Amino acid sequence: MSHTLSADLEFWFVQHADRMQRELFEFLRIPSVSARTEHAADVRRAAEFLQRSLETIGCDVEIVETPGHPVVLAEWRRAGPHAPTYLVYGHYDVQPAEPLDLWETPPFEPAVRGGRLYARGSVDDKGQLYLHIKAIEAILAVRGGLPVNIVLVAEGEEEVGSENLADFVRSNADRLACDGVVVSDSSMFAPGIPSILSSLRGLAYFQIDVEGPTVDLHSGSYGGAVVNPATALARILASLHDDARRVAIPGFYDSVRPWPETVLREMRALPFDDGTFLGETGAPALGGEDGFTTLERIWTRPTCEVNGLLSGYTGEGAKTVLPSRAMAKVSCRLVPAQYPEEIGRLMRAHVESVAPPEVRVTVTELHGGKPWRAELGGPLFDAGCKALEAAFGRAPVIVGEGGSIPVVEVFESILNAPVLLMGFGLPGENAHAPNEWISVENYERGMRAVACLWTTLG
Amino acid sequence: MSHTLSADLEFWFVQHADRMQRELFEFLRIPSVSARTEHAADVRRAAEFLQRSLETIGCDVEIVETPGHPVVLAEWRRAGPHAPTYLVYGHYDVQPAEPLDLWETPPFEPAVRGGRLYARGSVDDKGQLYLHIKAIEAILAVRGGLPVNIVLVAEGEEEVGSENLADFVRSNADRLACDGVVVSDSSMFAPGIPSILSSLRGLAYFQIDVEGPTVDLHSGSYGGAVVNPATALARILASLHDDARRVAIPGFYDSVRPWPETVLREMRALPFDDGTFLGETGAPALGGEDGFTTLERIWTRPTCEVNGLLSGYTGEGAKTVLPSRAMAKVSCRLVPAQYPEEIGRLMRAHVESVAPPEVRVTVTELHGGKPWRAELGGPLFDAGCKALEAAFGRAPVIVGEGGSIPVVEVFESILNAPVLLMGFGLPGENAHAPNEWISVENYERGMRAVACLWTTLG
Repeated sequence: MSHTLSADLEFWFVQHADRMQRELFEFLRIPSVSARTEHAADVRRAAEFLQRSLETIGCDVEIVETPGHPVVLAEWRRAGPHAPTYLVYGHYDVQPAEPLDLWETPPFEPAVRGGRLYARGSVDDKGQLYLHIKAIEAILAVRGGLPVNIVLVAEGEEEVGSENLADFVRSNADRLACDGVVVSDSSMFAPGIPSILSSLRGLAYFQIDVEGPTVDLHSGSYGGAVVNPATALARILASLHDDARRVAIPGFYDSVRPWPETVLREMRALPFDDGTFLGETGAPALGGEDGFTTLERIWTRPTCEVNGLLSGYTGEGAKTVLPSRAMAKVSCRLVPAQYPEEIGRLMRAHVESVAPPEVRVTVTELHGGKPWRAELGGPLFDAGCKALEAAFGRAPVIVGEGGSIPVVEVFESILNAPVLLMGFGLPGENAHAPNEWISVENYERGMRAVACLWTTLG
Repeated sequence: MSHTLSADLEFWFVQHADRMQRELFEFLRIPSVSARTEHAADVRRAAEFLQRSLETIGCDVEIVETPGHPVVLAEWRRAGPHAPTYLVYGHYDVQPAEPLDLWETPPFEPAVRGGRLYARGSVDDKGQLYLHIKAIEAILAVRGGLPVNIVLVAEGEEEVGSENLADFVRSNADRLACDGVVVSDSSMFAPGIPSILSSLRGLAYFQIDVEGPTVDLHSGSYGGAVVNPATALARILASLHDDARRVAIPGFYDSVRPWPETVLREMRALPFDDGTFLGETGAPALGGEDGFTTLERIWTRPTCEVNGLLSGYTGEGAKTVLPSRAMAKVSCRLVPAQYPEEIGRLMRAHVESVAPPEVRVTVTELHGGKPWRAELGGPLFDAGCKALEAAFGRAPVIVGEGGSIPVVEVFESILNAPVLLMGFGLPGENAHAPNEWISVENYERGMRAVACLWTTLG
């Protein structure tokens, strides 16, 4: 049986395309960077924009305060108590846009070029959140009502670890009770191949600070007799991997569970090409842990990455300082059943064991999220497959994902409901990097897939 | 025989103290940061300030252009062709002042607190250069003439490797011909202990750039399958030393010549205290190459220091990027007979041998200077000892220095004249760091020592 989107909805989407794009642009123009305190007011503006958007289409909306950025909670419950209820999750905060000079057009001035919509947050996740709102609007406008009840949760702290979301979900568990959760914050395997995500890596993010002298010293007058914090940091970072590029933190792999053979088989059948992937990165060559393919390295293996380095003099020319301090941002991607708390304990113990006594070394845990693997079945999963086929003209593939959406595990465990991850990004879309984009076609098809999901489930 | 400064000069110095301080402040207010192109005009302003100062006291002055910042060349030759000629060298450029927020008073607004004159360049080297000019002024004012001819060379590129000075000296070798060179750009061993410097370490300064992906990547979507440039850089930097903190670049120590036993004996007799030195640094503990004392580590052993690190995200909070590139500034201090060209060759070969093939690694030589050891004797050395005793009330000690003044070797080899290094800085004066200062007392005594040097040599 082939699935297609019904003509009434399709007609409405075409008719309202221009207006919807203008609205999305307005949303993307708000620099809702959750990691930066100076953007706190912008983050709130984005929440208020969502509130207006959702109220306009007929939802009851509340901006729920948290100790950090607020959660936007929207409800449409007119399907009645006997209809199923589904929860849609997305986030309206974005990553910092720096380095700004590498953007071809400004990060918060959306621009369409060659079928791509460029803007910070276009794909991660404002665009994917917004297409859900527009799909609901379409059904309400065309049919007068939805066949299911909808609860929409949009948070403003996903890019800084969703620290307050678990508390929010726990405190509002009755109100959020549902038959399933739908999240669009991920990528399709390739253009034209709709995808359902079966796994996410977790995250344990650290800052390592090494402190030596009180101030930067003259490297001639002191160099050789004072341990250099930048050198000490480099040696600590070098100790995080062995020569086979395995993580060398003792105990790091102890709780890793083997990957299901069925999923590994699906993974090996995917039309994946190392050369194309390499081309996306622009790196001279690929490389990673010995003994694994690229997809296995990204989807099924934990990592330890240096995300940032800062010490001493970094300007033009030469300055002969022995730096007073050195800083690294380091994060581990985790797979089931590695938990951030345990990895934090192992990281701290390892760094302490290798740090030289002549410097002060501190490891600060910035945030963490648990890894996740899905059950591949049930009404929501089946409806998702049908909806994707209707919108994209082919059945979805089952894929993994190296990134982290820590809230998926939060929803699943607290609400005891299955989570369906159907995302409309693409590889190479520069999420978290300059020139982030979303495919305009995927945005359009995504909107239709979500509309089809709700009509299918009704 | 005890030496003291003659009363006529002493009287003059006291009488003109206030005016001379105002003039020095004016000189220190000019932010002549040679490493920063945006300060090029300030560097020239400092040269012009010197020109006016030297012309006012009766010298013939020329600002000599170079491909970089100009050299100020001043001459006073009225002692006649049969009198000896001495060359004074100093530099009017300064190190960058960053990080600005660590300065208690602004770097280019001189301030006296507790007997210390705080300003960028106060001790390195504008203050020490300026006291030479004032000493000449004093003798000319009080005695009507000097007993020796003086050539004063002030360069504007010492802090960026004096790249054009060797050419300048070579091109003007006849005009610069002299019986000896005097340089005040170093420190005394301790307060109240005048010192003559018998050795300088050389320098070979590099920038190491590691490039991987074209742009910063999402560390979830790509991490594990793309070699991380920051991790690669950390591993390269960690390979620069072994566990005994010896430099591990193959061949690095091959050309090191043993230190003269007489100098080592003088060194061991100096009243040096590790605890005091540690206190100056504020570090938790001292540390360096196994098997050497602190003074040996600083004065007689070569080093390899990381001067700066930059990669990926370094702002507030967490950003999960796999950085596109990583940069380190790395410099080696050299001892006789290590030469920068050879160390550059060894560094490059080593980095290439340990760099992983999945990233592009480049080593750029930013600048270099040869190490130097003095002959301890001759008329200039003897007069220096007497002058220091006259000004400070005790005979000088012979010390080493871990820093580099590459031009010393340049003057000695091109002009074939002995170089006397008598400096008036102190340990802990924060040269190259925030809150640089010079002791007001040393500045005053330094001026008198130089005046005594010229009258003694006449």
